[in-house]
Amino acid sequence: MPNLDTAFSALADPTRRAILARLASGEATVMELAEPFEMTQPAISRHLKVLEGAGLIVRRIEGTRRPRRLAPDGIVAIDQWLAMLRDALAKNYDRLDEVLVVMKSEERKDVP
Amino acid sequence: MPNLDTAFSALADPTRRAILARLASGEATVMELAEPFEMTQPAISRHLKVLEGAGLIVRRIEGTRRPRRLAPDGIVAIDQWLAMLRDALAKNYDRLDEVLVVMKSEERKDVP
Repeated sequence: MPNLDTAFSALADPTRRAILARLASGEATVMELAEPFEMTQPAISRHLKVLEGAGLIVRRIEGTRRPRRLAPDGIVAIDQWLAMLRDALAKNYDRLDEVLVVMKSEERKDVP
Repeated sequence: MPNLDTAFSALADPTRRAILARLASGEATVMELAEPFEMTQPAISRHLKVLEGAGLIVRRIEGTRRPRRLAPDGIVAIDQWLAMLRDALAKNYDRLDEVLVVMKSEERKDVP
């Protein structure tokens, strides 16, 4: 079970969000990740360690390469938590729609 | 435009996530929030300040009451960012489905 504290904390950094955005288009090695970010490989590795610890990415072993990719479990966990807020907002909009429908029908009654 | 750094950072605390979960079922005052959490009102107020600063909740003024509720803009902002990862995972699953379909049709060819 991924830890939501460490997952959300890992997302609170723009470089780490950018790394996840890059991995969203496919797996990449530290070297491949370091290039577009103009960061040293140790700096990228530190960010990857945080993302790995938070359960948001996983590494694959392929010979001497260690490509990283998104970890579905961790992302699904934060998404499921957020779904609760998303549903709450959607319900509020539904309630607003109902109020507007009632208001419109009231308006119609006022028409002589 | 809500700041994603402060928004995700605010979500990295279990009490703050619990406050948001409570507000998902409707607005509440500091006093109403303090009760179920068995926390002092100043402690709750500090958490509310962080959530407000992160653009995740707003306060309404109603006489002497200051009920808080979810702030749609802030929640939509983090949800939209997360949608990018969600879509990437969905595409990966689609690709996996395609691979499985091809594998099954290949299997069928093998049947004499």
